This record gives sequence, C-alpha cells and structure tokens, in this order.
Amino acid sequence: MAQLRIALAQTNPIVGDLTGNAERLVAWTRDAAERGAHLVVFTEMFLTGYPVEDLVLRTSFVDASIRTLEEVARTLEREGLGELPVVVGYVDRAGLAPRVGQPRGAPLDAAALLHKGEVVARTAKHHLPNYGVFDEYRYFVRGDRLPIFRLHGVDVAIAVCEDLWQEGGPVAVVGQAGAGLLVVPNASPYEKEKDDVRLELCARRAREAGCALVYVNQVGGQDELVFDGDSIVVDGSGELVARAGQFTEELLVVDLDDLPVSGAQAGTFPHDAGDGSTITVDRLVLSGEPVEPREPREPAPGRVAERLDLHAEVYSALVLAVRDYVAKNGFQSVILGLSGGIDSALTATIASDAIGPSRVHVALMPSRYSSDHSLADAEELVRRQGVNAQVVPIAEIVNAYEKEIDLSGLASENLQARVRGMILMGLSNEHGHLVLTTGNKSELATGYSTLYGDSAGGFAPIKDVPKTMVWELSRWRNAHSEPQFLMSAERPIPENSISKEPSAELRPDQRDTDSLPPYEVLDRLLDDYVEKDMGSQELIAAGHDPALVTRVIRLVDLAEYKRRQYPPGPKITPKNFGRDRRLPITNRWRETTG
Amino acid sequence: MAQLRIALAQTNPIVGDLTGNAERLVAWTRDAAERGAHLVVFTEMFLTGYPVEDLVLRTSFVDASIRTLEEVARTLEREGLGELPVVVGYVDRAGLAPRVGQPRGAPLDAAALLHKGEVVARTAKHHLPNYGVFDEYRYFVRGDRLPIFRLHGVDVAIAVCEDLWQEGGPVAVVGQAGAGLLVVPNASPYEKEKDDVRLELCARRAREAGCALVYVNQVGGQDELVFDGDSIVVDGSGELVARAGQFTEELLVVDLDDLPVSGAQAGTFPHDAGDGSTITVDRLVLSGEPVEPREPREPAPGRVAERLDLHAEVYSALVLAVRDYVAKNGFQSVILGLSGGIDSALTATIASDAIGPSRVHVALMPSRYSSDHSLADAEELVRRQGVNAQVVPIAEIVNAYEKEIDLSGLASENLQARVRGMILMGLSNEHGHLVLTTGNKSELATGYSTLYGDSAGGFAPIKDVPKTMVWELSRWRNAHSEPQFLMSAERPIPENSISKEPSAELRPDQRDTDSLPPYEVLDRLLDDYVEKDMGSQELIAAGHDPALVTRVIRLVDLAEYKRRQYPPGPKITPKNFGRDRRLPITNRWRETTG
Repeated sequence: MAQLRIALAQTNPIVGDLTGNAERLVAWTRDAAERGAHLVVFTEMFLTGYPVEDLVLRTSFVDASIRTLEEVARTLEREGLGELPVVVGYVDRAGLAPRVGQPRGAPLDAAALLHKGEVVARTAKHHLPNYGVFDEYRYFVRGDRLPIFRLHGVDVAIAVCEDLWQEGGPVAVVGQAGAGLLVVPNASPYEKEKDDVRLELCARRAREAGCALVYVNQVGGQDELVFDGDSIVVDGSGELVARAGQFTEELLVVDLDDLPVSGAQAGTFPHDAGDGSTITVDRLVLSGEPVEPREPREPAPGRVAERLDLHAEVYSALVLAVRDYVAKNGFQSVILGLSGGIDSALTATIASDAIGPSRVHVALMPSRYSSDHSLADAEELVRRQGVNAQVVPIAEIVNAYEKEIDLSGLASENLQARVRGMILMGLSNEHGHLVLTTGNKSELATGYSTLYGDSAGGFAPIKDVPKTMVWELSRWRNAHSEPQFLMSAERPIPENSISKEPSAELRPDQRDTDSLPPYEVLDRLLDDYVEKDMGSQELIAAGHDPALVTRVIRLVDLAEYKRRQYPPGPKITPKNFGRDRRLPITNRWRETTG
Repeated sequence: MAQLRIALAQTNPIVGDLTGNAERLVAWTRDAAERGAHLVVFTEMFLTGYPVEDLVLRTSFVDASIRTLEEVARTLEREGLGELPVVVGYVDRAGLAPRVGQPRGAPLDAAALLHKGEVVARTAKHHLPNYGVFDEYRYFVRGDRLPIFRLHGVDVAIAVCEDLWQEGGPVAVVGQAGAGLLVVPNASPYEKEKDDVRLELCARRAREAGCALVYVNQVGGQDELVFDGDSIVVDGSGELVARAGQFTEELLVVDLDDLPVSGAQAGTFPHDAGDGSTITVDRLVLSGEPVEPREPREPAPGRVAERLDLHAEVYSALVLAVRDYVAKNGFQSVILGLSGGIDSALTATIASDAIGPSRVHVALMPSRYSSDHSLADAEELVRRQGVNAQVVPIAEIVNAYEKEIDLSGLASENLQARVRGMILMGLSNEHGHLVLTTGNKSELATGYSTLYGDSAGGFAPIKDVPKTMVWELSRWRNAHSEPQFLMSAERPIPENSISKEPSAELRPDQRDTDSLPPYEVLDRLLDDYVEKDMGSQELIAAGHDPALVTRVIRLVDLAEYKRRQYPPGPKITPKNFGRDRRLPITNRWRETTG
C-alpha cells in the first residue's frame, strides 16, 4: 500500500485572463508544495476560466490557451516547482478536418498533466453536457482518451466534470483498466442543495471505479453562474474523506493512505467504453516507488467543512455573484433605486455585504403616489447600513412627459417606473456605477415589472429568488453575520420593510394582492409550472386551484417578452429565466388549452 | 418505369398553433388532390411550427402534437382525402428511460406518413444540428429509422432536414437500400445567398442516394429567423427539375417520370449508417401498381421560379420578418422614431411594405440639436408614404431631468436617446403599437447605440444589416416595386436621407465619422472579425489597418453588454448578434493582445 498527499485547488479563475490565471496556478502550486503535496489538481478549464462561450471558436483564443499551458509548465520548472505534478484544465483542439455541424476548430474541453517543465499527458471531456445552462455540443468535440499516470507507485486517472455524471465513458473505463485514484477537475455551477447530489454521485462513481476519487470544483461568480466550490474527496468505498467550504477559495490538502501500488505496463490500450465508443487508455510512469511512510511532520487535516443551511447557502451565492460581477467587470461601485420595499432593501443589503456599503449608492425617487412610510423605511436602511444616498423626486419629470403625450392607466404607471430607470442609468453613465435591478423571480415570472423601468440595469441580484424567499433571506440576514460579509451592521434591514404589505405604489392605494394571489400560493404554483414543467392538467391534479392555474399560466407565458430582457442575474434554481428557459416569443401554444 | 405527381407544400406554419396548422394541412392537401397529386410533402415540424424551443420539453405539448397528428389523419379520411398519402413533420417522443443529459421526455423531431386515416409510418431526424441558430441536442434525441414506402410501384424514402447536410446516416442508407425517390421535409432558415448552397447540396445527395430528391422548406418569419422557402426537386443525376419561389407560400406540383419500379420485400432491415450508428429501414407497401400513363389532363408545370438578386432577397426577408412578427404576435400596428436619417427611413419603408402605411405610426422627436433638414426629411417621408405621424419635442422633458440630476457628455447624449425611447414605449403601451427599433448592425456591433434609448423596442428590422447595405437597400427600394409590397408609393425614401452624411445629432455638429472610420472600411472589417472570427493577426494580414483593427476590436468586444439586449431582429447573415454569437460579459480576453 502507498500514500499520497493531494492538494485540491478550489479556485476562482477569471474568464479570458489567461496570464492572470497562469500566475494564480503558480502561486497555488507553490502553496501546495510548501504543504508537502505530491499532486495538485486545479479545476476544469482553469487557465481560460469557465464558461468561455464563443471565444472557444476563435483560433487565436485556442492558440493562446495551448501556448499558456506550455508556458506555465516551463514557469513551474523555472520556479523550482517542476517536480510537483499538476493537473489543470484548459482548452485544446482535436485537429479534425472541418465538417458540417462540428464546432469551428474542433475545440476540446481539455485537461493536462504538467511535470518537470513539460506537458506530459493531455485528455479531454468525453461526455458533453447540452442541457440546462450547458450547450457544449456547440463548442466542443468529444475526447476519447483516459490518461493514467503512475505517481509514487499509485496509478492516477484523469477525467473531466461531466464524465462523472453520465454512464459509460472514461469513468467506466477506470473500473476496467484499474487505477488507485481518479482525479476530476470540474466547473459545476451552484444550484440550491446541489451539494447533496454531488456527494452521492462522487461516492457512487468511486465505488464503480473501485478507487478513491478527488473532485475539484471551481468557485466564484461568472455572469449568471455561481460556482460554489464544495470540492470532495471520497475513498474507494465512497466514504467522505475531506470536503472544502462553499463559496470560498481554498487549497484543500488531504492525505490518502492505503492506495494500491501498481505494476501495470506503460503503453496505450483501447477499451470499450460501454456507451458505443472506444476510449484509449494512456498509461505512463512518473515515479514507480511509493513515498516513504509519512514523517512526523504536520499531517494534512483532511478537513470536512461544515455545510451551510439553505438560507446561508443561497444568500452566500447571491453575495458572491454580485461581488464577482462587480470586480471582474471592473466596476468600482453600484447604484440602485431604494423604494422602502423589501426587494430593494434586500438587494441593497446583498450589495453592501458584497462590496462594502461605502461603494453602494442608492437613489430614493418618491412620486406623487409614494406613501410616507416608503421614504422613511428607505431612509432607515440608509442610516443602518451607511450607504450613499440621494433623493431625486420624479413628479416634475413625469409631468414634463405628460405635457407632450397623453398616457393613462398602465402606460402611466410604466412611465413612472421608466423615469426612475432612466435616472439610475443617467447616474450610472455619469459616475460609472453598475446599476443593480431589484426585481424578484415571482414578479419577473408573472410580468409584474416594467420593461426599461425597474428592469433596467446591468445585474439583477435577486432575479432567481421567489418573493417568499426574499422575505426569508431578509429575516435570515437580520439574524446572522458572517465573516465574509463586508458590512458589519446589525439587523441591516428595517423591520417595517419586511413586515409591510407589498405594493408597487404606481397608483393610489395599490397592493400586489390586487392583481396577484398571496405569494405563498403563487410561489408554489410557479415552482410547479416553471421548474417542473407541469402542464395545466398536472397542476390541477397536484392540488392548485384551477382558475388560478389558468390565470397564472397566462401571465407567465405572456411575460416571456420581458423575461428575454437583460440584465443577467445569479442562478440558484434549475430554471432561471433567459439562459435556462427558452420559449419562442411568436407562439400560439397555450398550456391552458393543451 | 413509373411516374408520380408530387405536391410540395411550401407553407408558413404558426409556432404552437397545432389546430390552425392542422387545418392548413387539410386545405393544402385538398388543393394537391384537386391538382392530381399522388403524394403531398409538408415541412419539418409543420404541425407544431419550427422552432418551438423549450415547449418541446413539456409533456402536454408533445402529447398535443401526437394527438393532433392522429386527429388530422382521421380528418383527411373523413374529408375524402384519405387515399392521398401525406408526409408531414411533427414532434414525437422516443419512449426512452430518463437519464442525465437526455432532454426531458426524449422528444423526436419526427415525420409521419398519413394514409387512409392512419399514421402508417413514423421516423425522426437522425443528425441533430447544434451550431449557429440550432441547439437541438438540448431538445431532441436521435432517430434511427428510415421508412421506405411503395407508392404506385415506386419506393419513396423519408429523411428530415439536417440528415441531408451531414455525412452518413439515413441518406447514406437510402443509397445502400435503394429507393426511387427521397422526400425531405425541412425548416432551413434563410441566410444571404444560401439558395446556391442548398441546390448544390440537393444535387450531390441525389447522386449519392441514386434517386430523385424532393426538398420541401418552410417559409415565413419566426422571431429572429426567416425561412425563405426555395423548395427544390432534382432528378437522380442532380439536375434541377423544379423550384419554388423565395419568401412566398406555394404548393409546387411536379411530375416525375422515369422513376424505377421496385419489387423489394416489405419488412425491417438494419443497415450500417456509416457514422458509427445502425439505421433500421422500414419497408412497407401502399400500392404496388404504377399509375396509368398520364392522361392528357393539364400537366404539372415543374416550374423553376426565378432567383431574386441579393438586394431583392435581403429586402424580401426583412419585409416578411416584420409582417410575420406583427401578425403572428397579434399586433395591429407599429410605431418608430423617425429622425430624418437613413436607418429610420429604411425601417419605416420596410414596415410600410410589410403591413401597409396606414398601420405604421411614426414619432418625430426633435431636440435642441436636431438640424432643420432632419425634420424636413422626416416630413417628406411621411408625405411620400402616407404613414401616421406626430411631432413630440423632447427639449422640455430633457430639461426636467437635468433639473433633478447633473449629467454631462455621453450621459447627457444618452439621456436624449432614452427620452425618445420612453416616449415610444409610452405610446406603445397606450395604443398597443409594436415599437420597431431602427439600429443597424454596424452601429450595434460597435456600441454606437443607447441602451434603453434607440435600442428600446420589440423588434429590430435592420439589426442584422450593415450600414453600407442600409444605403444599398434604400437605393434598391427606390428603384423597385414588387407586387407583395403593401405600399405602392414610388421612390418612398427621400433622396436627401440617402445622400446626407450620417449623424446621431446628440450634440452640436456631431458626425458618425467623428468617432468611426468610413462605413465601407468599417463594414469590411466587421465582416472579417464578426462573421469570420478572424483574430487580430489574421485581420492585419488580410490588409486591415493595424490601428483600426485594435480600435474596432475593442469597440466590438465592449459592446457585448448592449448586444445582449432585446429586441430580436431578422437574421440575414451567419452571425446576427444574440442568438448566433455568444460571448461572456465577464471576460478579460482581449483579441488585440492574444
């Protein structure tokens, strides 16, 4: 039996920042070396960041990825780190002749093994996900190799992300070929409570492959996606050995003992992958001798980080999404409209926790229909959090429009929302703030938002948060502080914003319940219709009120037009609108008549 | 030798309108019967319309598609049309167990043969396109069957759309198995000069399959896609026999003589499809006896419709796109801002040709910076076309904003554009007009448009038209009238709008050339960078000025934020923004430094 100390680099790369990501790789590898690791495993496409979308179709980009990989191998050697093998994801190409339907340049979602200044093995993802947020058949061709390299006597196999999720392919071949350890670089986006699924998956695959498994996941916000980290190590029986934290970068170092020593021959061996394809195993030897039994130096802890509960998890995802969207796009500050209601209050709080209240600007924009408590509640939040506030009354601007054009009813309500949106955009253009929108998922789903009004902006922090969860998160945040939050205020959200009845205040005495059912009822129905794709008959069978089913389906289907709108926002459920749910605009299908 | 009279139903279905599409099928089949056809071929997914995007993931929708297919077969029989075989596309399901990565419900892009009130054969697309506008791995599983039915002694095979474009699969099996005719339902979107590619493809596949080929394509606008029809019949040597018109519905009836009579046995036969898969041929017999030699009734013409030249083709695509977007979404009228410049002049003209000038509304919105000729040129267009006009000065509204917030430079320019956008949206909300935006592809590509300003609206007719082509199309339209245009005005575009120097008029004496190179230079560079995905080194090697390459690449990459914006617009090139070109917002890759 042999042992290895493995370093899992749970990192937050920046998409397109090849040079910066390479520098991060060198720094983290140095850390791992100092902590006595025998192998460092980085995430999927770490050198390019993930996902890079259509950049992968540019020859120059793929060239740069390959060049950066080779350069960073040499840099590691030059910096005295060449003896420590590194597994890292990048983009390569397959060198296939062009044909109809094949992505331009035949790119590969690749991973490489770096050792002694060289790229000593290359592989690529075999199973390409093309569901939910993924459309990898657009971008990549399939890999068909499985490298297994001997490290201090132990055979270590490399597979990439989706190859773990689907049946057959490289992971099945690991079981046939035999290995002592399977390492898997991943870029697996966060979804509510996905960590439970992931652990179960890693355990099952470890048992199937008959070896320990190291799962290393990306962390950080990337446009609509949030990556939660949650890197996992299980042994060959599927038992959890170590687990990194959620929503935080971490170099998790773990000692694996009792790994089998291999004497298998080097060479290439084709295997039936059980999915109609053939996978070629590339066996190579870096070092055949097991390491000496561990000295009495500090043992790596094999720490199992505590799991966050649902509200902590979702709130952390939103904070990280805002922080990274702001930082990675080079903004210094954000601005949003603060109404006194709960949606903008929670959005402001997330922003303060993400980048600190001194970089958060709010505009209080009372109209002729704003109630006294609205301004007071907004001012109370400003006082508690210490954000930068200015008051911009909108009545005179609305009057100026109404002198030129006659608007009534909904058109007039929309005008007020749009004047507020244009004020925020003007202040954004003048001062460089990123505009955050404050719409929640329930109102976006049902179309209760104004195109170019409250939906105008660059990022939508609570776009994927149903209204009932907006309240839950607000109460949760008032009861908790976490060290990673950049705002220290106690109870940052005024209680009155949480407890009062919701209203858009676009006409006298307006209430959300004038036109919508109670949010507890609505959110359950939306979840069944939007997330679970239930049809009207199924919804009624599931106990929803038939009249409400008809009404809400109609609202949701008609709101498609607005939902196609920018901005993006962090994703916490399977079906955030836009990227994950795509319906034609021109469409006569009505679920209620199906 | 035998003969058949084939009817190609080049139709414009409505997405989701299963009942309406079924009624169209019956009506067109009756026409075909009256014209003596022995077989009618409809388009891909005709019963559902194409594409239906995520609707296909709903159980209720797929149920409705299958039910509608079976109902329409019975309706044909009831209406006395049951003897005439009909090939039609619809959505079916494969009945596979759910697994990770497989679209929910395992839907099929299917085609069926209807005869005597029954569905007598079913097949489904084998090759799933997942490039450009297609993402069918998200929606469908692969078909693996090839029906070949004997009709009056002739073996007729059915394959679907993409199976014609890719190597191997059902079309290769037609060559192995032997058939007298291959019929192919399609939904192949328009792109500039794609008709040349299509004819060459049909001819090549006919020669490979060793039989005549009937290619039936959808026509009409569907959100960003325009389908151009252009249905084609070639004989077994690849010679063109008949061709339908472009951008128009047509029942093309053609006599095919000298078709081989088959005596092959009915049954199912597996074939190696040459792409790593097995295709099962389903042979069945409807009628073994060849039809009597044609009576001296009027022979079907086998007409070959004349091809449109480039400008007629693009202009027709834009007109059809606007007409169908308006009609299929239930709008009665459109509104747009008319500046006196060429972009809004061409957009108004397309709208007048699409839905008639009496349903076109324009707002003239002069500011403090508008020149005299702007208002005069706009008024001249109103006079020539007879559209509905109103003048809404914006100066006082801009003043009202500037009393509340201090804006300068670009922020102030944007404010003016946004006030205009909000006026159009207000009038749209009040009166139910669809707002058309007037931005062209060159300015959208380089970011010379205002978010929530001139880019605010529901449909963008010239979103995919470069500025140089805006001028070309304007001159072309002034020189041509076509019967399908709903405006009869001669020279509808004022010459001064075409000839004057372009300006946004957002500050005194502003000219586009203050900040952009001449459009002839810019458009060539944009084509190489955006359509051809050339990197900076390649662009310089292709003869573009290095400083301009750096500047324009920077503009285009930074404009991504705005380009993600709604509205959709018709697609005439491979890379319309949004659907066809997807770049991360958060991205540090700079082509100029690669």
